[in-house]
Amino acid sequence: MSQPEFKYFPKIRKQLFTVVFGTETRAGKLFDIILLWAIVLSVLIVMLESVKEVRDSFDSWFFVAEWFFTGLFTIEYILRLVITAKPGKYAFSFFGIIDLLATLPTYLTLFVAGGSYLVVIRSIRLLRIFRILKLGRYLREASVLSNALVASRHKILVFLGAVFTLVMIMGTLMYMIEGGESGFTSIPRSIYWAIVTITTVGYGDIAPQTITGQAVASMLMLMGYAIIAVPTGIVTSEIATAEKNKKEMEQSKKNLEQSSGRSCTACGVKGHDEDAIYCKNCSAKL
Amino acid sequence: MSQPEFKYFPKIRKQLFTVVFGTETRAGKLFDIILLWAIVLSVLIVMLESVKEVRDSFDSWFFVAEWFFTGLFTIEYILRLVITAKPGKYAFSFFGIIDLLATLPTYLTLFVAGGSYLVVIRSIRLLRIFRILKLGRYLREASVLSNALVASRHKILVFLGAVFTLVMIMGTLMYMIEGGESGFTSIPRSIYWAIVTITTVGYGDIAPQTITGQAVASMLMLMGYAIIAVPTGIVTSEIATAEKNKKEMEQSKKNLEQSSGRSCTACGVKGHDEDAIYCKNCSAKL
Amino acid sequence: MSQPEFKYFPKIRKQLFTVVFGTETRAGKLFDIILLWAIVLSVLIVMLESVKEVRDSFDSWFFVAEWFFTGLFTIEYILRLVITAKPGKYAFSFFGIIDLLATLPTYLTLFVAGGSYLVVIRSIRLLRIFRILKLGRYLREASVLSNALVASRHKILVFLGAVFTLVMIMGTLMYMIEGGESGFTSIPRSIYWAIVTITTVGYGDIAPQTITGQAVASMLMLMGYAIIAVPTGIVTSEIATAEKNKKEMEQSKKNLEQSSGRSCTACGVKGHDEDAIYCKNCSAKL
Amino acid sequence: MSQPEFKYFPKIRKQLFTVVFGTETRAGKLFDIILLWAIVLSVLIVMLESVKEVRDSFDSWFFVAEWFFTGLFTIEYILRLVITAKPGKYAFSFFGIIDLLATLPTYLTLFVAGGSYLVVIRSIRLLRIFRILKLGRYLREASVLSNALVASRHKILVFLGAVFTLVMIMGTLMYMIEGGESGFTSIPRSIYWAIVTITTVGYGDIAPQTITGQAVASMLMLMGYAIIAVPTGIVTSEIATAEKNKKEMEQSKKNLEQSSGRSCTACGVKGHDEDAIYCKNCSAKL
Repeated sequence: MSQPEFKYFPKIRKQLFTVVFGTETRAGKLFDIILLWAIVLSVLIVMLESVKEVRDSFDSWFFVAEWFFTGLFTIEYILRLVITAKPGKYAFSFFGIIDLLATLPTYLTLFVAGGSYLVVIRSIRLLRIFRILKLGRYLREASVLSNALVASRHKILVFLGAVFTLVMIMGTLMYMIEGGESGFTSIPRSIYWAIVTITTVGYGDIAPQTITGQAVASMLMLMGYAIIAVPTGIVTSEIATAEKNKKEMEQSKKNLEQSSGRSCTACGVKGHDEDAIYCKNCSAKL
Repeated sequence: MSQPEFKYFPKIRKQLFTVVFGTETRAGKLFDIILLWAIVLSVLIVMLESVKEVRDSFDSWFFVAEWFFTGLFTIEYILRLVITAKPGKYAFSFFGIIDLLATLPTYLTLFVAGGSYLVVIRSIRLLRIFRILKLGRYLREASVLSNALVASRHKILVFLGAVFTLVMIMGTLMYMIEGGESGFTSIPRSIYWAIVTITTVGYGDIAPQTITGQAVASMLMLMGYAIIAVPTGIVTSEIATAEKNKKEMEQSKKNLEQSSGRSCTACGVKGHDEDAIYCKNCSAKL
Repeated sequence: MSQPEFKYFPKIRKQLFTVVFGTETRAGKLFDIILLWAIVLSVLIVMLESVKEVRDSFDSWFFVAEWFFTGLFTIEYILRLVITAKPGKYAFSFFGIIDLLATLPTYLTLFVAGGSYLVVIRSIRLLRIFRILKLGRYLREASVLSNALVASRHKILVFLGAVFTLVMIMGTLMYMIEGGESGFTSIPRSIYWAIVTITTVGYGDIAPQTITGQAVASMLMLMGYAIIAVPTGIVTSEIATAEKNKKEMEQSKKNLEQSSGRSCTACGVKGHDEDAIYCKNCSAKL
Repeated sequence: MSQPEFKYFPKIRKQLFTVVFGTETRAGKLFDIILLWAIVLSVLIVMLESVKEVRDSFDSWFFVAEWFFTGLFTIEYILRLVITAKPGKYAFSFFGIIDLLATLPTYLTLFVAGGSYLVVIRSIRLLRIFRILKLGRYLREASVLSNALVASRHKILVFLGAVFTLVMIMGTLMYMIEGGESGFTSIPRSIYWAIVTITTVGYGDIAPQTITGQAVASMLMLMGYAIIAVPTGIVTSEIATAEKNKKEMEQSKKNLEQSSGRSCTACGVKGHDEDAIYCKNCSAKL
């Protein structure tokens, strides 16, 4: 990360910038690792607080810990704003917004009860871990995946549209067949059942009991079985294409380097091997 | 959409045609958007009506709303029939039949109770949304998907035949093993369980309790696990082929254009190989 | 199907052979269709008989129908044995054994109660339907599928071996964690649960209740999620290869036909276009 | 397996080595098969012992059998240590550690109750079966699979990271929506539910009951439906690449052998292009 020029207190801000934003120095790495542990701890505490038995025993401890971590993250956020040369750019960047949202929930509890659970948003900050891992490799892989998903978005939209229409019609049909019995108490609930079934989740809290209902449900399941093949096919095909393109691009780059300046001066034929000394077409010296 | 010639009232029918059937003009687009919202609202109302708590509070409102939308769609259907030059062609087209079916359920409730739920058929009309989105791109993607499914229909039929035979035999086997206990009360019900299991839906309302039954069920599950790979493999392979064909067609079209500049100067024949030295048609030097 | 030579009563046996074994004549087709309907009916009757309400009302009818169809199939089996020139070959062929097994269950009920359910084995006879459909096309597709499965059998065995070891260890682990509670009453049952979970069937009759158990189960599920990708990948890859081989074989056959006798008599170069008159390499007339 | 040189008692140790470690001789094969059956029996006994009804009847038998097999495996382990030339290498090899772990659990029961279930670790020893099957073929297939998994490990880590973040946020959201009802009693439990749902296992012991909860759950399911396509796509793509590489390597090896006959008669250099007329190294005519 290039170090920007600062107007005020340039020296100390430069040093802090290297520690807080950078990962190259020992101090910068340590800062990031401590930060990650603080995030993990603060998220864990919120989760444990939701378990009744734990909350009853350690209530006051949780209260202290929550405010401690919130204070820590608030100081960190202000620090980041102060030491960066372009506070606006940071504040509106992806991680800038997440960093702000991660501090707000605890302040919210002063006004609204239950807001503290929003602290789970801090878990998004854990994605910083890829920063420390010198994430170049992971970013490339993630970009292959997201490119494949983006390239197949039209196909997936068409597919989801078809699934949605199918689910609405099958849900209503089952509501009419089961007649409000065995969980099919309304059309929205029946549509919910159809989604649970076609995605093969199958909770079983709503399940057809009549013979006709079971026959229709069987059809829906077999459809779902065939239909699940479609998104898989789309994404697989796109990932294969993305991988191939990556490889071809590397290959063509290599070819270009090889063939450049390696055309025979006598007959002009290109594509000689790297170690060739004489032209393979006219025997002139290369 | 080309505008047809009308015999009677040509001017006003032409204008209405542009609005009702077309999407190019501002009025045509507005008409389609209003129509879509009306469809969404009418379907939502039928769904909410099926929820007992909502129905008890707003019963008369629903009655009014249902007849209002039905009237609207009836007028729209008649309008479409009147202003098109070939009413027969529209009436028997896919959307023509759906438009008619979308109006009938409410009239049906005058004779048969519960018919109003058929209104959900209106949701198919929502597919019109692709019309507004200038759906060229979506149609192409949908055609890739449907081509892949059509190309693999023989394979999928063979596969479904095998699954069906397997499910019938395993269902009967489980009925004999569990002996009418834990939900396996009849062979059709046991076959229903086998379908629920092999598709990995797994409601759990019927589940084996004996050791033998659980062993057989485990085998069926592992089979289903291996078998689910087959349709996925089929469709993936077909989608990859369809994508490749599309690309190759574009490529060969491009090649044709490129090579057209390599026509023989003597006889004008095109399509020579890249490394050809003499014209394959008249032996003139290229 | 070629008609064999018969020693005794050659004329009538020849005619019957055409009807019973053949599908080319009108009578042969009619015989097969009637047979299919008889099979469907007899299987349906056994299934309905297992439904308690239906059995109570039509008990004697079912008894008559079962013996009627069994008699019919017995006569058919003897007829096939008699009119074929090589009874031994038929008797030990796949369909010969199935035809015999389809008649036995009802006779078995004279000695053992409940044997009649084995009649479901008749459903395998329904595979004859592909015979009538002039199944060439379906056979080819089925052979692509089965070739892909056969080609990947070593990979699938390795995979199933790994899954089996994983399931045994995880099942025992869960038995130790849950301590005989919430359905995990023995190791075999816990292994059954692990199979239900890793295949994503998830009945829910056995489900972990302790925090540790749920954490381990979550790991197993995510593993299953990643693992399900493996057989799909194997089969998809094999199907793609099988399809490609089929295409390449057709292509190479075509190429061979094209290039045969099309080498230039002057310079010997091959691979001229089909419409080429002069050699593209030396301009000699082909 | 090459036979090492022994210092003490070289003759008897050589013979025993051939039997215990080797599979080529008749005695070596027999030893391995008896060993496999002993492993299967000892694992089966531990499993049956966990079934209450069986344990009550055969308690003392199980006790004897367990110590018998443990003694057998202990002797076998010591024998292996003694007869191998490099005991350290065997002791720290994969199978060496497993062999040791397989004997320990029963001794552990002298100090800790319930330790005997760890005997299930013996099932890993069953992987020796591939040794007997002359497992070259299986090892190659396993290496294709494991190579594909290793090659896609970065993509799978990125994917699991995304799934984990999604599951944490959706779990907390559902805890807030369902408000501690219908099984969503804490955030960890809700996260467990989210994993159960996104992997399409769907036990149904925890299932949303509110309309909002069911709507959010439906979204999660459809996401899971689309997301399951990603690991499948990754692994499929990698397996296809691995297969292709294997084939290409074989092909290029073959090509190399073929072209080796086309070495320059003047300088002996190999690997000329197929259409090369002059040697690329010394310009002599080929």
